[in-house]
Amino acid sequence: MEKNNYYSQENHGPYQLFNLGDFKLEDGGIISNCQLAYSTFGKLNAKKDNAILITTWYSGTSKIMEKVYLGEGRAIDPAKYFIVIVNQIGNGISTSPHNVSDPLRGPKFPRVRIGDDVRAQHKLLTEYFGIESLELVTGGSMGAQQTWEWAVRYPDMVKRAAPIAGRARNSTHDFLFIETFMYALTSDPAFNNGYYTEPNAVNRGLCHHADIWSVMGYSIEFFNQELYKNIGFSSPEEFRTGFTQNYFLPMDPNNLLCMAWKWQQGDVSRLTNGNLSTALGRIQAKVFVIAIDGDMLFPPSDCEADQKLTPGSELKVIHSHAGHLGLFGLHPSYFEQIDKYFGELLAIPSYDKSTNQAAFQSRVEESSMVST
Amino acid sequence: MEKNNYYSQENHGPYQLFNLGDFKLEDGGIISNCQLAYSTFGKLNAKKDNAILITTWYSGTSKIMEKVYLGEGRAIDPAKYFIVIVNQIGNGISTSPHNVSDPLRGPKFPRVRIGDDVRAQHKLLTEYFGIESLELVTGGSMGAQQTWEWAVRYPDMVKRAAPIAGRARNSTHDFLFIETFMYALTSDPAFNNGYYTEPNAVNRGLCHHADIWSVMGYSIEFFNQELYKNIGFSSPEEFRTGFTQNYFLPMDPNNLLCMAWKWQQGDVSRLTNGNLSTALGRIQAKVFVIAIDGDMLFPPSDCEADQKLTPGSELKVIHSHAGHLGLFGLHPSYFEQIDKYFGELLAIPSYDKSTNQAAFQSRVEESSMVST
Repeated sequence: MEKNNYYSQENHGPYQLFNLGDFKLEDGGIISNCQLAYSTFGKLNAKKDNAILITTWYSGTSKIMEKVYLGEGRAIDPAKYFIVIVNQIGNGISTSPHNVSDPLRGPKFPRVRIGDDVRAQHKLLTEYFGIESLELVTGGSMGAQQTWEWAVRYPDMVKRAAPIAGRARNSTHDFLFIETFMYALTSDPAFNNGYYTEPNAVNRGLCHHADIWSVMGYSIEFFNQELYKNIGFSSPEEFRTGFTQNYFLPMDPNNLLCMAWKWQQGDVSRLTNGNLSTALGRIQAKVFVIAIDGDMLFPPSDCEADQKLTPGSELKVIHSHAGHLGLFGLHPSYFEQIDKYFGELLAIPSYDKSTNQAAFQSRVEESSMVST
Repeated sequence: MEKNNYYSQENHGPYQLFNLGDFKLEDGGIISNCQLAYSTFGKLNAKKDNAILITTWYSGTSKIMEKVYLGEGRAIDPAKYFIVIVNQIGNGISTSPHNVSDPLRGPKFPRVRIGDDVRAQHKLLTEYFGIESLELVTGGSMGAQQTWEWAVRYPDMVKRAAPIAGRARNSTHDFLFIETFMYALTSDPAFNNGYYTEPNAVNRGLCHHADIWSVMGYSIEFFNQELYKNIGFSSPEEFRTGFTQNYFLPMDPNNLLCMAWKWQQGDVSRLTNGNLSTALGRIQAKVFVIAIDGDMLFPPSDCEADQKLTPGSELKVIHSHAGHLGLFGLHPSYFEQIDKYFGELLAIPSYDKSTNQAAFQSRVEESSMVST
């Protein structure tokens, strides 16, 4: 297998690597010298209480998240916050099928779960940076899965969470959708059970995979209203090839399949014996569940189902005919809309152990005064 | 190529054949001895003014339409109407790639358009049955395309029309969806450019084609609410294989591709130099544009766009979480809902040339009386 230049520092950096050592996976197996690639923005303050974690979606990288979520004068502002964007395992930047050494290379890469990513990110934040609390965890799609997992797994550490266009437990419909684009890759004869000889050998499979995304990833209105013209494409055919196919074509099929399986299995209720309500009930963070109204994968009604099980949460809906891939900011007012919600959420006073402790103490003292 | 027993009289009959002779196609080419397979129910009255035409959807046959739309005591009742269900060209019952003689066999079958089907059906109804007016034309999905084409092409003949879950001009999004399932068939190495050796050689491609239908053909709520249990499937996996794959697996890939291309190109404005508004403005029928609210292919907003361009039409929405394939009647109250709309539509007095003539004459006489 040749090196794939798409996943370079030049394209997706600068990023740093954190070595997790021998990283044990939930489904068994160990990745030796597992590397978590991350990028940071802004400065961690002395109290280490101004950190924000951003997770990555299917095929997304820290560079893409940086462009979508950060900026001077934006809600998530490096002037105010210390922002860590962590590439998920398998995305081609962190340790992945295409860049790991044998015996785990290519199709031999072990099954990785959302929980593995979140535990790995927790090690980076706590052991390397010494961060004990997060002002906000956010991410879209598979990034939302990681956000949900963070809020359920480490409730003491997450003050605020904003899962965007994604579920706490993957839906059956989504599972089927993922099946179809996985099959698009694996059925290409050039895929050869994952032992393809060069990164772009699976060209036809990658195009078909992209086309399935074109059907489900945007929305009918996006095409009816020819909104691809807003981002410089003159025809649906040009958009289909020039935007969607072009985005996926340089990627490594085994990397995509590693993430796709992880997405399919996403389920925070694995932490609570399959009880989703109990899992989401553990959350102490203030949560904005953010949905995109034209999303054919995670319509607001689906996101609302998770929101209703989450104490103290609110459903926020972004208007975008661009559908699920509106996550890239394809709708003209997307950045404005997402920043408004981030701004509102960050302005809400968070759950605070010390404050709650004081309040509890004062109630105890009051009751003692009465009884004595 | 072996005979495919799926398309037999036993499975889809009894049907009769009407020989169109040498049938010239819009895109060029001739199908010699082109056969239109049709089934009739009820009796044509002496005035020949009680006829209803039902068209077929992608992969649908007259037998399936019979089960979905007709019945004693139903709105479309053979005791009252003479009902003709015509199989579209390429569906495997009428002349199709798999059953035609060389030199048109298999992948050599010429391009057929919705307009070809409608002209062929017109010949059957007028030349064979001597029918000059239709009480109702209806059909779902590709059947809706034929219904729209009928109302635009033969406005004098169609008194009422009910296109269900389909467009007068195919949408860009739908075009892309069709691309993905066409590719599912053609990319299977066993497809061999259409020269496969036996009907079920393209097994894997047909399964993938069915899976893409499983994603777009139902709805997210259908799976969330486990509505497949209502029709006897215990899990989504069992439904996916036992219902959707099982439905498509015995079909002939070249037949499906013939229909898929026809569907992609569907556009009544071909009759009016690309002007859809002008095309739909020609319609004299009373039209109920019927949409299914959970339809991911033709949401009510899309159907409404055509309805708004159609004089004297009304939009009617069927509630069904089964989505587009709710057309099969998967939702418990589907038959009740569709019958209500058919009943209402059939009860509306139709445009009638003789009545209008009389009304016109009386207005002329009145005005003469005033002026003399």
